Amino acid sequence: MTKNMVISIDIPSGLMGEDNTGNISDNIIQADFTLTFQFPKISFFFAENEKNLGIWEVLPIRLHPDGIAQTLTDFRLIEKEEIQQIIQKRSRFGHKGTYGHALLIAGSFGKMGAAILASKACLRSGAGLLTTHVPHFGYQIIQTAVPEAMASVDQHDSIFTEFPDLSHFSAIGVGPGIDQKTNTKRAINELIERSKLPLVIDADALNILAENKTWLEKLPEKSILTPHPGEFKRLVGETENSYIRIQKQIEFSKKYKVIVVLKGAFTSVSTPDGKLYFNSTGNPGMATAGSGDVLTGIILGLLAQGISSENAALAGVYMHGLSGDLAVLQNSEFSLVAGDIVKFLGKAFLSLKSGSK
Amino acid sequence: MTKNMVISIDIPSGLMGEDNTGNISDNIIQADFTLTFQFPKISFFFAENEKNLGIWEVLPIRLHPDGIAQTLTDFRLIEKEEIQQIIQKRSRFGHKGTYGHALLIAGSFGKMGAAILASKACLRSGAGLLTTHVPHFGYQIIQTAVPEAMASVDQHDSIFTEFPDLSHFSAIGVGPGIDQKTNTKRAINELIERSKLPLVIDADALNILAENKTWLEKLPEKSILTPHPGEFKRLVGETENSYIRIQKQIEFSKKYKVIVVLKGAFTSVSTPDGKLYFNSTGNPGMATAGSGDVLTGIILGLLAQGISSENAALAGVYMHGLSGDLAVLQNSEFSLVAGDIVKFLGKAFLSLKSGSK
Amino acid sequence: MTKNMVISIDIPSGLMGEDNTGNISDNIIQADFTLTFQFPKISFFFAENEKNLGIWEVLPIRLHPDGIAQTLTDFRLIEKEEIQQIIQKRSRFGHKGTYGHALLIAGSFGKMGAAILASKACLRSGAGLLTTHVPHFGYQIIQTAVPEAMASVDQHDSIFTEFPDLSHFSAIGVGPGIDQKTNTKRAINELIERSKLPLVIDADALNILAENKTWLEKLPEKSILTPHPGEFKRLVGETENSYIRIQKQIEFSKKYKVIVVLKGAFTSVSTPDGKLYFNSTGNPGMATAGSGDVLTGIILGLLAQGISSENAALAGVYMHGLSGDLAVLQNSEFSLVAGDIVKFLGKAFLSLKSGSK
Amino acid sequence: MTKNMVISIDIPSGLMGEDNTGNISDNIIQADFTLTFQFPKISFFFAENEKNLGIWEVLPIRLHPDGIAQTLTDFRLIEKEEIQQIIQKRSRFGHKGTYGHALLIAGSFGKMGAAILASKACLRSGAGLLTTHVPHFGYQIIQTAVPEAMASVDQHDSIFTEFPDLSHFSAIGVGPGIDQKTNTKRAINELIERSKLPLVIDADALNILAENKTWLEKLPEKSILTPHPGEFKRLVGETENSYIRIQKQIEFSKKYKVIVVLKGAFTSVSTPDGKLYFNSTGNPGMATAGSGDVLTGIILGLLAQGISSENAALAGVYMHGLSGDLAVLQNSEFSLVAGDIVKFLGKAFLSLKSGSK
Repeated sequence: MTKNMVISIDIPSGLMGEDNTGNISDNIIQADFTLTFQFPKISFFFAENEKNLGIWEVLPIRLHPDGIAQTLTDFRLIEKEEIQQIIQKRSRFGHKGTYGHALLIAGSFGKMGAAILASKACLRSGAGLLTTHVPHFGYQIIQTAVPEAMASVDQHDSIFTEFPDLSHFSAIGVGPGIDQKTNTKRAINELIERSKLPLVIDADALNILAENKTWLEKLPEKSILTPHPGEFKRLVGETENSYIRIQKQIEFSKKYKVIVVLKGAFTSVSTPDGKLYFNSTGNPGMATAGSGDVLTGIILGLLAQGISSENAALAGVYMHGLSGDLAVLQNSEFSLVAGDIVKFLGKAFLSLKSGSK
Repeated sequence: MTKNMVISIDIPSGLMGEDNTGNISDNIIQADFTLTFQFPKISFFFAENEKNLGIWEVLPIRLHPDGIAQTLTDFRLIEKEEIQQIIQKRSRFGHKGTYGHALLIAGSFGKMGAAILASKACLRSGAGLLTTHVPHFGYQIIQTAVPEAMASVDQHDSIFTEFPDLSHFSAIGVGPGIDQKTNTKRAINELIERSKLPLVIDADALNILAENKTWLEKLPEKSILTPHPGEFKRLVGETENSYIRIQKQIEFSKKYKVIVVLKGAFTSVSTPDGKLYFNSTGNPGMATAGSGDVLTGIILGLLAQGISSENAALAGVYMHGLSGDLAVLQNSEFSLVAGDIVKFLGKAFLSLKSGSK
Repeated sequence: MTKNMVISIDIPSGLMGEDNTGNISDNIIQADFTLTFQFPKISFFFAENEKNLGIWEVLPIRLHPDGIAQTLTDFRLIEKEEIQQIIQKRSRFGHKGTYGHALLIAGSFGKMGAAILASKACLRSGAGLLTTHVPHFGYQIIQTAVPEAMASVDQHDSIFTEFPDLSHFSAIGVGPGIDQKTNTKRAINELIERSKLPLVIDADALNILAENKTWLEKLPEKSILTPHPGEFKRLVGETENSYIRIQKQIEFSKKYKVIVVLKGAFTSVSTPDGKLYFNSTGNPGMATAGSGDVLTGIILGLLAQGISSENAALAGVYMHGLSGDLAVLQNSEFSLVAGDIVKFLGKAFLSLKSGSK
Repeated sequence: MTKNMVISIDIPSGLMGEDNTGNISDNIIQADFTLTFQFPKISFFFAENEKNLGIWEVLPIRLHPDGIAQTLTDFRLIEKEEIQQIIQKRSRFGHKGTYGHALLIAGSFGKMGAAILASKACLRSGAGLLTTHVPHFGYQIIQTAVPEAMASVDQHDSIFTEFPDLSHFSAIGVGPGIDQKTNTKRAINELIERSKLPLVIDADALNILAENKTWLEKLPEKSILTPHPGEFKRLVGETENSYIRIQKQIEFSKKYKVIVVLKGAFTSVSTPDGKLYFNSTGNPGMATAGSGDVLTGIILGLLAQGISSENAALAGVYMHGLSGDLAVLQNSEFSLVAGDIVKFLGKAFLSLKSGSK
């Protein structure tokens, strides 16, 4: 083992910028630092290359803006300027109806916290109204913990089996903590068939989809799926490496006309037109229980206001990470809990307007 | 579309200061900014004129105070100095009885948050004591969330059907989240007939009134009704525009001898003597679930202390907006939730005494 | 009505320093300000003299300390230096057993908030352990709201009817929110007979005592009663004025060998040896629901640690007011709620050590 | 009694540095201050010597580092540098699975707060996921208070009698508030026999062990026991003094191959290899209800992430004290409650990285 520090310029020798399938890892330089030119390469966002890249940083080399603009690519980094365009100042005369009415279907016996966290996140992302649908045993919990949300109560004591009239809602999210019982599967199927709105689909709802892949064809167009890598694997099968995984992600989005938010250190968002975006915010302290529920709530809240599915997914992912980045400064990577991410959403939206990241 | 910035002086050409009924909108200048002399005109407070006015600001032109005082008008702006007169320093020897005992009737199955938010707002607006009447299934929720309130529990599990002996109370509020079931209607009717105190009437209680307009005649004098535009429409029917709507508001107040708080970007408060006040505080972040419940709580809390109905309505509307204005600085327009408005009430009351707005 | 400001020196002409019984109020100067020499007079602490005194302040005139010390009086002001003697730094090797185990009996159906507030206050005043005894319907409420307290649960659903083995406890408090049902009265009687420890008795427990005055003889010596003026009247009957009321308070303390904490703007504490202390902290914002429950919790928490009844009452009253004085700076007199007093207890104890009040 | 201040240099005359068994306390100097050379002696950490030592401080006398390193000792002080080695920065690509899934078995009827406090502490110490197993009556309480935890619900209403499939978990903690009913004892026995992971064992689980000492032989290797002195006495019998007590602690650790965390002013941690560590953080304000539950949660959270039992115990004890030291600055020794220790964990982890203690 060398004692010298290894700094790679642009990219460690042997590492490809995109696909490293078949590349023998031991033959690639293991850098302590990588200083890369103008843009991070796609392979920089993959866990398996961390040992080769070390800590990486981008060095601007003054490529000509026109050159950049004319270079076509389906890969983008989600950055502040873009999100600022999506998150616009509100009109003076907006009222709670202007900002939509979200329906969140979440929680089951033992997993009611998912409903609490997603509900709070939805309300703190700007939805005008929120109805959270919970099983009967979750009624007091959600009403005590989230007074701003209305509760719709399932006839079933412990799981999701039915849903209210969908015509009242401007956005629908389903999945956090709902478990995978038979009657829940039936209700998910019915929801997919009945909904005229794109759905935000997370967690157990994704696992149910993975077991019933024929339902994928019936998903409302522009629905947003938010799998973590384990859930994604259940949907598309094993993938050899991260590069092939994002290829599958893009294919999936195109095939089913949905947005896929593949959660990870650099969350990737794929859209039906074949584009893929890597997120630039977030930190390892966010790898904590309920963090995904918060993301679902944020995306749902943005969608409810009339923001498009693509933009809600991009801004949701970015704001989730940004809020976590602000929260970790007060709470440390060890102590950060999902509720902290919700608490810092206000500061995150405020910081969007300001000059700093 | 012009590329030049349009600045209107006093008022955009073609826009009337009050009534624009029949005025063809396309023929009116669409300014980016309007700099108006000494006072905003009434039409500035209406949503439909926003596109003509752009951002407006008042330029003092040193009109003589006597001139102003001698110009009779039924329209006023609610401003800080006026509210300071209403919200006076407390006597050293006041006790909790001095500040009254409020009764709040709120909440139903699935909408208990309305009771929580209104209760907290009432207590943070200075009521000495508060009893919140809730359906049986709301019992644990209210007692856990608002320890300072006593609970009166309906014999019905999920809705409001009866009320406690009214003689103990110095102010009564009803409506947030109560739903509109048959037995609730019956209870509302009985409450109106029995109450010797003016009532604060909000939300579903207003919708019940709208369905039973003959009950309006029986409303205790100086009751305060707090409709949003949709609820107001149910009470008085469709109105062609905002100007005609405030005319109807004034008529309604005079006819039924009640105060009407018509909620909106510039909330208007009409009184039985035919006056109408526009509020000067608040922001679009307050267009969020539960915001109206908080307002009801504030007005109820002020009323309980012996402040007159007119003054409680004016100060309530102003303090609600002021608290929201302080809250939005920490939470952003997107992330502000109704509970934040409650939390900033203390700072809002403190800021009344200070030099700044 | 005079337009000139009236300043009284030492005391407004016509006002007696102590007893103003029979004094004709209209014949006494009504000052705007009173500048009094060296000490406030007893009559300064009475509500009925506020209109004569206006705002008063003490002017030190350098009376000789020996002269002061040699002047015998049964009346004292509770001041910081005295409380600092009572609230001592803890030993490095103390453990939770060192600081005692308090039993709080509080709450009934609809009044569980009293149990929450008193429990939190007790824990934040230094008790090592706390068991809160609540009716069955209060179980989930207290355990959710106050995780640091253990719950003892009554067999009765909605009221207090029995108590746990008293031998485990170092201090016992009873009364906040317990209501006055027959079985509760029976349980209070039994508690008085069985307890070998002085009791802290508040609220409904006082009202029960007032209805059963023969039980007063059986009160454990050095018990602490915390009536507000209404409750005190039920105990001793109507009193003509505040001066006569404190005479009755002193008599009561001597007769029953108890400490009486008569709550008000200047709370007075009387002890079995005939002394009476006026409190110097507190503000009108504290005239709010649950404020008394917090006081009961503080006194109980101090008593549990082995502080004497007299000192626990004096320090409890002082700390309650001091915490309220700190809380009001952040919350205003209007918005202060009882929970705020609990929250500022830590700052209040910290401020005891520092130079400022 | 002397009026002169007594300062001992290195150690008060007559006091031994380790064992004072048989030493006549009255013959030992009672210092007000002790200034000791380079290291505190073992006897400094014992309550019975506080009166002899007064306030002690360490004076560095520049002993040669090599000399220190070569002096073998089984006694160590837990200090910041050591804990910094244990608490490492997280990898960018960690996910919630990386940080493990903890199982906490805690709470019983009337003692659900223990489950809340330990759960929150576990989540704020970095566990990726947490399942808290509670009796049926504790279900709503834990789900309302700790949304980030999943709940596993016992079939028994009020106590612990069974546990979920252990194969899902990376760390298991048991004991806070579980009571000692027969069926709980049976479940503890079964847990010990079935667990392939070391257990964190606290409170009532320790008392059950003390009644069934034959089970000690079956404890999973490297389990962590966290008794306070009373619980420790039940395990090993009466000990004459603190020195003999730590000897027994070391023996116990060696015999049963477990880590023992003996809680006190200077918590001592003994390991199976015969070493003993004294903690250097903490304060008397932490002698409060629920403080031990928080410690159990912290150790469990660290263990879940894959930190070794020894290191989790050492770091847990240190972080618990450090968080309490930060919390007491805001809350005072009197007002500190266990929940405050949880709240300051984030600041404590942050402060580990910084230069200050």
